[in-house]
Amino acid sequence: MNIYAILYIIGLVLNFEGAFLLLPCITAAVFRETQGFAYLVTMAICFVIGLPMMILADKKKKEFYSKEGFSAVAICWFIIGIFGALPFWFTHEIPNYVDALFETFSGLTTTGASILNDVEALSKCSLLWRSFTHWIGGMGVFVFVLAVFPKTAGNNIHLMRAESPGPQVNKLVPHLRDTALILYMIYTFLTIFEIILLIIFGMPIYDSICTSFGTAGTGGFGIKNDSLGGYSVQLQAIVTVFMVLFGVNFSFYYLIVAKKLRDALRMEEVRIYLAIIIVSVAAISINIAHMFSNIFEAIHHSFFQVASIITTTGFSTCDFDTWPIFSKTILVLLMFVGACAGSTGGGIKVSRIVVGIKVSIKAVKSYVHPRSVTSVRLDGRVINDDTERMISVYTVIYALIFMVSMILISFFDNFDFTTNFTAIAATFNNIGPGLEKVGPTCNFSIFTDFSKVVMMFDMLFGRLEIFPILVMLSPRTWRC
Amino acid sequence: MNIYAILYIIGLVLNFEGAFLLLPCITAAVFRETQGFAYLVTMAICFVIGLPMMILADKKKKEFYSKEGFSAVAICWFIIGIFGALPFWFTHEIPNYVDALFETFSGLTTTGASILNDVEALSKCSLLWRSFTHWIGGMGVFVFVLAVFPKTAGNNIHLMRAESPGPQVNKLVPHLRDTALILYMIYTFLTIFEIILLIIFGMPIYDSICTSFGTAGTGGFGIKNDSLGGYSVQLQAIVTVFMVLFGVNFSFYYLIVAKKLRDALRMEEVRIYLAIIIVSVAAISINIAHMFSNIFEAIHHSFFQVASIITTTGFSTCDFDTWPIFSKTILVLLMFVGACAGSTGGGIKVSRIVVGIKVSIKAVKSYVHPRSVTSVRLDGRVINDDTERMISVYTVIYALIFMVSMILISFFDNFDFTTNFTAIAATFNNIGPGLEKVGPTCNFSIFTDFSKVVMMFDMLFGRLEIFPILVMLSPRTWRC
Repeated sequence: MNIYAILYIIGLVLNFEGAFLLLPCITAAVFRETQGFAYLVTMAICFVIGLPMMILADKKKKEFYSKEGFSAVAICWFIIGIFGALPFWFTHEIPNYVDALFETFSGLTTTGASILNDVEALSKCSLLWRSFTHWIGGMGVFVFVLAVFPKTAGNNIHLMRAESPGPQVNKLVPHLRDTALILYMIYTFLTIFEIILLIIFGMPIYDSICTSFGTAGTGGFGIKNDSLGGYSVQLQAIVTVFMVLFGVNFSFYYLIVAKKLRDALRMEEVRIYLAIIIVSVAAISINIAHMFSNIFEAIHHSFFQVASIITTTGFSTCDFDTWPIFSKTILVLLMFVGACAGSTGGGIKVSRIVVGIKVSIKAVKSYVHPRSVTSVRLDGRVINDDTERMISVYTVIYALIFMVSMILISFFDNFDFTTNFTAIAATFNNIGPGLEKVGPTCNFSIFTDFSKVVMMFDMLFGRLEIFPILVMLSPRTWRC
Repeated sequence: MNIYAILYIIGLVLNFEGAFLLLPCITAAVFRETQGFAYLVTMAICFVIGLPMMILADKKKKEFYSKEGFSAVAICWFIIGIFGALPFWFTHEIPNYVDALFETFSGLTTTGASILNDVEALSKCSLLWRSFTHWIGGMGVFVFVLAVFPKTAGNNIHLMRAESPGPQVNKLVPHLRDTALILYMIYTFLTIFEIILLIIFGMPIYDSICTSFGTAGTGGFGIKNDSLGGYSVQLQAIVTVFMVLFGVNFSFYYLIVAKKLRDALRMEEVRIYLAIIIVSVAAISINIAHMFSNIFEAIHHSFFQVASIITTTGFSTCDFDTWPIFSKTILVLLMFVGACAGSTGGGIKVSRIVVGIKVSIKAVKSYVHPRSVTSVRLDGRVINDDTERMISVYTVIYALIFMVSMILISFFDNFDFTTNFTAIAATFNNIGPGLEKVGPTCNFSIFTDFSKVVMMFDMLFGRLEIFPILVMLSPRTWRC
């Protein structure tokens, strides 16, 4: 284990976090909020610890293998959350530090589950920081680090592999640094595009920025107590479209930019992702039509909620917990499906589900024709045995973590089965709201600190797709 | 596709069903019930269709490959259920044929979920037939056929592989026929032993027979409206022990009989199965202690319920739906764990879970030491790649079927999430009771016929472990 390599990365990430904190500081200055000091202090702490760490560890060898890469990413995510929660605690806006941690991890992992009863009581700078964590966590801290500071990590694929959502890293271009840069450029462009559109259609500038951060990272923290319920139908529709866009595999946009439109349109995962959305919206619209004055309103709300859940954003325009069980069941299942790999969305990912189904069909075929040898393909390319196996293993570990989490939170929190089940589903898949006591009009403050810690781990398991944290927790990693 | 081979097997199985129907006929004669005629008529129908089918198809080639074996087993299970449901319908004891089918499939698949509001209103012969279906389905129809009629199926492993629970068929001895015979001898011996013990401790003979059939097949149909709640603590304790015994891999008993005690005690699956039971009973007992007058009572009920759920029997002594969520969560998770492979119990099976966990650990290790090659072992033997892969694939398909079932039943049945979720969990894992509206004091009559049909498929998917039915439904199977 190369401990210096990890220390160096931690120092580096802390400095980046210090830089990120500039944004809430500026916000505080603009709105003349005293809470800005808490952000300045946190910024100072980050630099005071981060800079020496980086410099001292720099002299040593920085060779990186997968275990260093994976555990460094996991540790850094914990560090970012632990330091990022400080301002909420310093300002007393969230007096309990565990709550502040929950809120920050919920932001970074783009979950969007909140412990706040009254979101609107927060200062503008804190609300902005809260939404900004979505934007940082959405595309990933290390993708950002690689994009702007390439020499550091030595063009290291393990860091990106640990942080990128989906079963494989899609290197858009031969150089990793360029891939990271292109990803962030598309990400930034789409975010700015959404901000401008929202402003044009009448949303205040501050609201537009926060909402767009939440959409881009597929996070879902709202800055109003009724999430997006209070905005006009046009604004809700714009957010709906952008939620869907941010759930698309970013390779799709790269192919479009690179004028490979035909290849883009052929992307199986994107097509199936859109098909799932269309079918779900249609089914739910029919199911809830009687609850609205006309079918268009039903389609509008069903489209918004489907987009919000499948992309694991978690914004809401109405209380879908009052919808019939058929609609609720579809939404709960979409929680597990999740968005495309290589997007900012969470969940199991459409590509894993698609490969899972293809592997299953292959297994049934092998009973019918035992000697036939078929390979599973995605976008025409053969999925190798190793990837295929890891997808199955992923499902198994996923189910195990889900089960253990269910037991742990039921230990101190005697709520109904639906609440507990959907609380884990919503945090593990990085969505936000669940059903019953954690429904869209409720929040997670009802849980004990112990359960909140369990759910924090689930959020990180979900965002980093399990393995980095397991590698970090494995005793073997730390043996020399 | 060798259609004659399948027709021959169907005919054969129908004749066996006719023979099985002798038992309710005798019961009707003993208790002088007119309902016995319905059983006589059904018996006649079975022979009239079965005998000519068998004789006509016998002339043709009977070669068997896995697709014939798998689809024959799946089709035969449907046939047995369709004919086995007739007496309930003929006697008007269950006036709706879909309900009669549900009850029969629930019996054969050893699920034990009932649509009856008043079990005690049934005639003695029908109650016995209902419990006897558990006994037939528990060890398996084809295992029986192979044991008593070996030449037919040509010593065919595919039939047994399709019907035996667990990831691999454990051939106890080189000849398949002998394996089947030994299994049924152990099964019969244990059943008779339970009947005798129950009679000695004061249960009426008729009740003892029905209850033992239900325990042996890990089915769970009771003959009283309060399941086993009305019997003495001693009788409940005897049933508890036998439930645990029937959930043990039968290889364990064979090893004991063969005086390989050391090998028996080394069986990893059995040890983990017992460990899970002990830990669960301890955790639940502490959790529910305050609900009972003393800790022994809490242990008694918790032991009974844990044994009933993990073995997927489904008997109950009290309404565990009123227990705290911690206990309920453990019970719901045990529904999925299930009993040992090679037992009469359902669920995912302990060995699959154990291998799943080992495969997951191996996957994490491969990140830490990418070049290390380790193999997964169970009982010291290496699990080959193919079995390992099939276990993972099984989990994926299992989750997919679960999801589809959830959507389908929510379509016409607007119940709460917990009811629908546990209804599928209880039928797919062949348990019986769930929570809320399908809790231990309720039944499945609340569902529409459509949902009942969905759950019938789930019960068969669970009992036959998915693949035989998928092979039967695959269009490729039927192409020449």
